[in-house]
Amino acid sequence: MIELYFWPMACSLASRIALMEAGIDARYHMVHLWTKKVLEDDGDFRDVAPKGAVPVLVLENGERLTESAAVLQYIADLKPELGLAPAPGHPDRYRLQEWLSFIGTEIHKGFLFPTFWYKDDASLVKPRARIGQTLSVPSAHLADREFLVGNRFTVADAHLAWALLLLRAAGIDVAQWPPLAAYLGRIQTRPQVKAAIGTEMQLWKSIAA
Amino acid sequence: MIELYFWPMACSLASRIALMEAGIDARYHMVHLWTKKVLEDDGDFRDVAPKGAVPVLVLENGERLTESAAVLQYIADLKPELGLAPAPGHPDRYRLQEWLSFIGTEIHKGFLFPTFWYKDDASLVKPRARIGQTLSVPSAHLADREFLVGNRFTVADAHLAWALLLLRAAGIDVAQWPPLAAYLGRIQTRPQVKAAIGTEMQLWKSIAA
Repeated sequence: MIELYFWPMACSLASRIALMEAGIDARYHMVHLWTKKVLEDDGDFRDVAPKGAVPVLVLENGERLTESAAVLQYIADLKPELGLAPAPGHPDRYRLQEWLSFIGTEIHKGFLFPTFWYKDDASLVKPRARIGQTLSVPSAHLADREFLVGNRFTVADAHLAWALLLLRAAGIDVAQWPPLAAYLGRIQTRPQVKAAIGTEMQLWKSIAA
Repeated sequence: MIELYFWPMACSLASRIALMEAGIDARYHMVHLWTKKVLEDDGDFRDVAPKGAVPVLVLENGERLTESAAVLQYIADLKPELGLAPAPGHPDRYRLQEWLSFIGTEIHKGFLFPTFWYKDDASLVKPRARIGQTLSVPSAHLADREFLVGNRFTVADAHLAWALLLLRAAGIDVAQWPPLAAYLGRIQTRPQVKAAIGTEMQLWKSIAA
């Protein structure tokens, strides 16, 4: 059985959404990202993944795959009939990779990561000054589209929906970009997306309490 | 003919290396990343690419593809017989995607980007504190391997070689990680890599002069 190491509401949420949308049963291991402990057995997460970052997907053969862009494509390709990623070689597959990279570099690493990890104001002046320009890109793209790639839900939508949820928590009012706010609302009505977010919000609150 | 918008020694260098290793003739357009001008006609680069970032690959059908992770895979897949990326669906393809993501998020966006773009010391304290841990990951991986993925040169090596070159320019002495220094030396002996870097270094000096 596939396994996923995650921290509630971290970017591994996108991988959980992908697994649930794919209908893949998985074993979930909660990791405390700050202490690098695996919660179920107090084990050292660095023994699982030297990077100390989530997501970590444990494949059926026991190998471990990291990085959302890779994990999300791997999960999508387990159920090609669902179209969670365009088929390899299809022109849209490169569009999926383009969005996964943009979300991972510009939104996540360029803004969300310093906001939640670095926290100090000095580190955040420049990222805050850039986030509006960054978000204008998916906002313009989604003004007349339902999904990021093609005309169906893909793992790129799982990734962006996670990022938009976190932007709210980072003090960015997504309502400034009506296409993004509408998109997030639409994506959140999907039963598996709603269930995945609900599970992790509950876990998050249980830790924060 | 395929076209590439680039800025000398920016991450688009990896795409130039990929094109040259693939033996693909391309038309190259130099962009001034700071002024957002296309140098050959003083045109507005934002009209080409609203993101204002390189690389931008103009495909044979006129569409424009951005983000190194997508552009590099696209170029590799144009010449599948060369193995610049493992075949789609092969387990190693996800390893390639994992490295492209790691280089793009952790090394480029997490360290090189703030170093060259933000520049101020306050923005750089935290990224500088992290870069050693980040580089220990590819260093450990390359201690007993010639290439990042499988046993041949791939576009992930083009990406990492670019990042390591820039680390030197960013004041990080790669010699602290002997496997990385040895790897960069090996990759730079490849004729196409050497030619690509030579071309961009010359352009870079002509601008800086």
